[in-house]
Amino acid sequence: MPSTYQPPVATMRFLLEHVLDFDAQMAALPGLEEVTSELAGEVLTMAGRMCTERLAPLNLPGDAAGTKLVDGNVVTAPGFAEAYAEFVEAGWPGLAGDPEFGGQGLPRTVQIMLDEMVSAANLSFGLFPGLTRGAAEALAAHGSDELKATYLGKLVTGEWCGAMALTEASAGTDLGLLRTRAEPRGDGSYAVTGTKIFISSGDQDFGNNIVHLVLARLPDAPAGVKGISLLLVPKFLPGASGAFDERNAMSVGALEHKMGIHAQPTCVMNYDGATGWLVGEAGRGLNAMFTMMNAERLFVGIQGLGLADAATQNAVAYARERLQGRAADGRPGPVPIIAHADVRKMLLACRAFVEPARALAAWTAIRMDSADRHPDAATRDAASADVALLTPVVKAAFTDFGFETTVLAQQVFGGHGYIHEAGMEQFVRDARITQIYEGTNGVQAMDLVSRKVTLNGGAPLRAYLDGIAADIDKSDSGDLAVQMRAALAMLEEASATIAAASGDADALGAAATEYLNLFALVSLGWMWVRILAAAPALEDAHSRDTYAALAAYYASYVLPRAGLHAARIVAGPATVMALDEALF
Amino acid sequence: MPSTYQPPVATMRFLLEHVLDFDAQMAALPGLEEVTSELAGEVLTMAGRMCTERLAPLNLPGDAAGTKLVDGNVVTAPGFAEAYAEFVEAGWPGLAGDPEFGGQGLPRTVQIMLDEMVSAANLSFGLFPGLTRGAAEALAAHGSDELKATYLGKLVTGEWCGAMALTEASAGTDLGLLRTRAEPRGDGSYAVTGTKIFISSGDQDFGNNIVHLVLARLPDAPAGVKGISLLLVPKFLPGASGAFDERNAMSVGALEHKMGIHAQPTCVMNYDGATGWLVGEAGRGLNAMFTMMNAERLFVGIQGLGLADAATQNAVAYARERLQGRAADGRPGPVPIIAHADVRKMLLACRAFVEPARALAAWTAIRMDSADRHPDAATRDAASADVALLTPVVKAAFTDFGFETTVLAQQVFGGHGYIHEAGMEQFVRDARITQIYEGTNGVQAMDLVSRKVTLNGGAPLRAYLDGIAADIDKSDSGDLAVQMRAALAMLEEASATIAAASGDADALGAAATEYLNLFALVSLGWMWVRILAAAPALEDAHSRDTYAALAAYYASYVLPRAGLHAARIVAGPATVMALDEALF
Repeated sequence: MPSTYQPPVATMRFLLEHVLDFDAQMAALPGLEEVTSELAGEVLTMAGRMCTERLAPLNLPGDAAGTKLVDGNVVTAPGFAEAYAEFVEAGWPGLAGDPEFGGQGLPRTVQIMLDEMVSAANLSFGLFPGLTRGAAEALAAHGSDELKATYLGKLVTGEWCGAMALTEASAGTDLGLLRTRAEPRGDGSYAVTGTKIFISSGDQDFGNNIVHLVLARLPDAPAGVKGISLLLVPKFLPGASGAFDERNAMSVGALEHKMGIHAQPTCVMNYDGATGWLVGEAGRGLNAMFTMMNAERLFVGIQGLGLADAATQNAVAYARERLQGRAADGRPGPVPIIAHADVRKMLLACRAFVEPARALAAWTAIRMDSADRHPDAATRDAASADVALLTPVVKAAFTDFGFETTVLAQQVFGGHGYIHEAGMEQFVRDARITQIYEGTNGVQAMDLVSRKVTLNGGAPLRAYLDGIAADIDKSDSGDLAVQMRAALAMLEEASATIAAASGDADALGAAATEYLNLFALVSLGWMWVRILAAAPALEDAHSRDTYAALAAYYASYVLPRAGLHAARIVAGPATVMALDEALF
Repeated sequence: MPSTYQPPVATMRFLLEHVLDFDAQMAALPGLEEVTSELAGEVLTMAGRMCTERLAPLNLPGDAAGTKLVDGNVVTAPGFAEAYAEFVEAGWPGLAGDPEFGGQGLPRTVQIMLDEMVSAANLSFGLFPGLTRGAAEALAAHGSDELKATYLGKLVTGEWCGAMALTEASAGTDLGLLRTRAEPRGDGSYAVTGTKIFISSGDQDFGNNIVHLVLARLPDAPAGVKGISLLLVPKFLPGASGAFDERNAMSVGALEHKMGIHAQPTCVMNYDGATGWLVGEAGRGLNAMFTMMNAERLFVGIQGLGLADAATQNAVAYARERLQGRAADGRPGPVPIIAHADVRKMLLACRAFVEPARALAAWTAIRMDSADRHPDAATRDAASADVALLTPVVKAAFTDFGFETTVLAQQVFGGHGYIHEAGMEQFVRDARITQIYEGTNGVQAMDLVSRKVTLNGGAPLRAYLDGIAADIDKSDSGDLAVQMRAALAMLEEASATIAAASGDADALGAAATEYLNLFALVSLGWMWVRILAAAPALEDAHSRDTYAALAAYYASYVLPRAGLHAARIVAGPATVMALDEALF
């Protein structure tokens, strides 16, 4: 059975136009004045067609075929190279890219909606343009004019691909431990030597250049993170003719055997004195990487959302078709299993997450567009702080809830969900990586409690929570408002606890994941408040009914989780730290 | 990296001897009077050695090799046939089997501890003897003397294997829809025709006979579950010489492509007028299957526990070895990640589930032994009711919490956890099936709320809850007792809600999974109360410290989940049933 996927473009348009005030927001941003939710809808309709017609059909076969290493060269799954060429030809990689370098100059907000659909249709594929965009962002922010002139345009358009080479076997979360070396050659270039693991899109057979951004140590660099520099290391160097036809001294050591994203070539990369150039200042490599980290982490959160939506759509379709058992309403059986309360709960739980998550992602992306472009510095700063605050929440919560959603959706299929051909187990396996890469979700939670809560003395958090409180007060959303006030009060109290624990790594570590979950539950509930407030604008009464039912489910079945996380924060770190390390 | 697995035999002995009063319980059961926790410990030590030396080493390679269908014959992963032969030779399949038919006659309680270790070491392998035992139990309870004389001994010893052929493409949870036919031939045998799916151990290359128990309809059988009969259909029939060398008219249509348990041949089976014999009365097939369902479902719960323990052991080992980051205590970094609060929480959550789950499983198995053997009918009935009550809880909660545990343990590994070679992702994939097969966990929850809560007018539930209350009152377990009283009060109230909703399928369906989780949280907490009460008997102060810390974690971080489930039960079915089926 091929997977069902309907691009949620109508919903996206509704969110932009009625929930998030997109048109007015864009009108204030130089370069985006003409971008409206109508235009976004048109672009996304085309994007949705590409996702359903070109990418989704390659997803299940790509999982089965996987990637291969043949004579040192990566061979991608059938159809991927052609699909990538079409993707580039249509201009999708540069959707939000700088027009000066061949991009379309559209908002990040539209980009993340494209990202959601691409992830839903084919996550393994989506990582090719995703990492390319990340490399382009880092290069744009930190590269020399010369490097940019050579490489940036090719990356923005996707003609060449990008890869980010950070992790080593002994240096994951703790990049300060990395050992790859970069030796200056005296001609402005460096010889890069070392082995990196888990390198997504490290190599492929698309017939183009691949620009690796590699973290390495220069000679005499200090130990730890301050000794790390970023180098641009292309697969192909300009040869004698000036064409990029000379193979650099780098190779694929192996393809990782992974739980999922089988069609994505995750490489062990060997750099054997490969030629590279410094991006940004020596010793400031992590800084350069973190420039684009917000966007990359938001992208990963979006992947969780996209997979959750695709899985949910399939579960709903299956629950309508699958006939088993009898219903309480007495109609003759067997009935579609969507009649059963337990199945309905699973579907409601899935959709009650997906809808507000999409809204919150778009809200965050709009703030990102403001941070990039608003003419007023204070407005930019405030937007930037919101993005900093929300980034770990979107990354971790969307991937944790997203994974849970794929598991629930798979469960709706019963035994059939465990079988490859149904496609549901692939969603689960693919979603699992999103909780891990670009910083594990534990790392995201530590970022939130140790840096973001106290950012600028806590002012951005204060403003964020006040905004939520104001929207609740404006709403007439009944039980949802009651539950939201209770949950918001818990979040306020927990925020004070976190702020008071500043610098106490154990207290913060014990509270981190709980706080992030509490924060996410309130934030998603806030989006429900805003969606319900905007719902009267919908012409379709059925859509209003759907939102009302999902929001009610969120209020009475999901928001009570807030109390669990609050209780754990109150419990504090003593219980967590008590047991001797040897006695686990 | 090969997976770590230390058989938890010392813990098992402690539970039997000091927590569960095993020796005195067995002394009251005819045929088991001589069985002590010391004897059990000796048997389990041998079993543990077999698991670590023979089965665990085949687990990861078996996952990679999978099973193949070659010219219509299943080829199992390298080493499986040899390991099965040794397993049989050593007498493990018949550990708790009837001595009259070649079994060892040991308690089920010892059997489930063996099951846990086998599942932890190699779940794909464990299903071969597991399904054989299920077939033996059904045959023992319902088969004619003639069938038993021919087949039962072979199944009890494991010389022949068993398979259970229930599911069809359109008949899963709702077996009433099945269409496989059995036509009487007039000689006492039947011609069985139909296609079954998801048949674990449906075929293999162990060189022995495979006894399929097949659900089918006799001619003119009524529609629905009352028209279903159970037939014994062996792969090999007695040929002219009397030897079982004549191939029956059945074949493997395909091997299912599954998310996990890759080394287990899950078959599509075609019966093409295959010869079979009725087991039990015509039309009473489901009844015959349900005879052994409690044991099978308990076994599946145990699988969740075994995988969770194996995953946890590996996560602890990795967290001790993996050096990343700095600790709050100021020692020089990088430190083992077990120093980080967030990692500790994951490990604590894993172990805080595994330890009381093992105790609760053993408690349930002891009740099963009493139900089988106690000389007093009233005592047998009470034990049997406890087993009926606990079976869906153990099956569903142990597999749901077990799956969550494997996911947490995988998360401890970071990116390495996503890689096949570490073995952690296999635990996750293998654990996932336990939530689905032998009745999905949603089906278990419906069984609990619609049949078990109100069993015998609710008396068994009343007695169970009173027993928990009494143990809490006897304990001096501080915060755990406080939290347990609160959670037990919620369970009492929820039980009243469920009893009052009797017959209302929507109300029961909306509450079912919540109630089961609440029931499980209280039951596991009860085991923590009992473990702490027994802990002074431990000679090792370190073990006492470990239990104290884990129980404290359970009290303050896990038990608060009870409130979430209670709140959802209070919320009731209106929210769940409101949305029109077309509008999801």
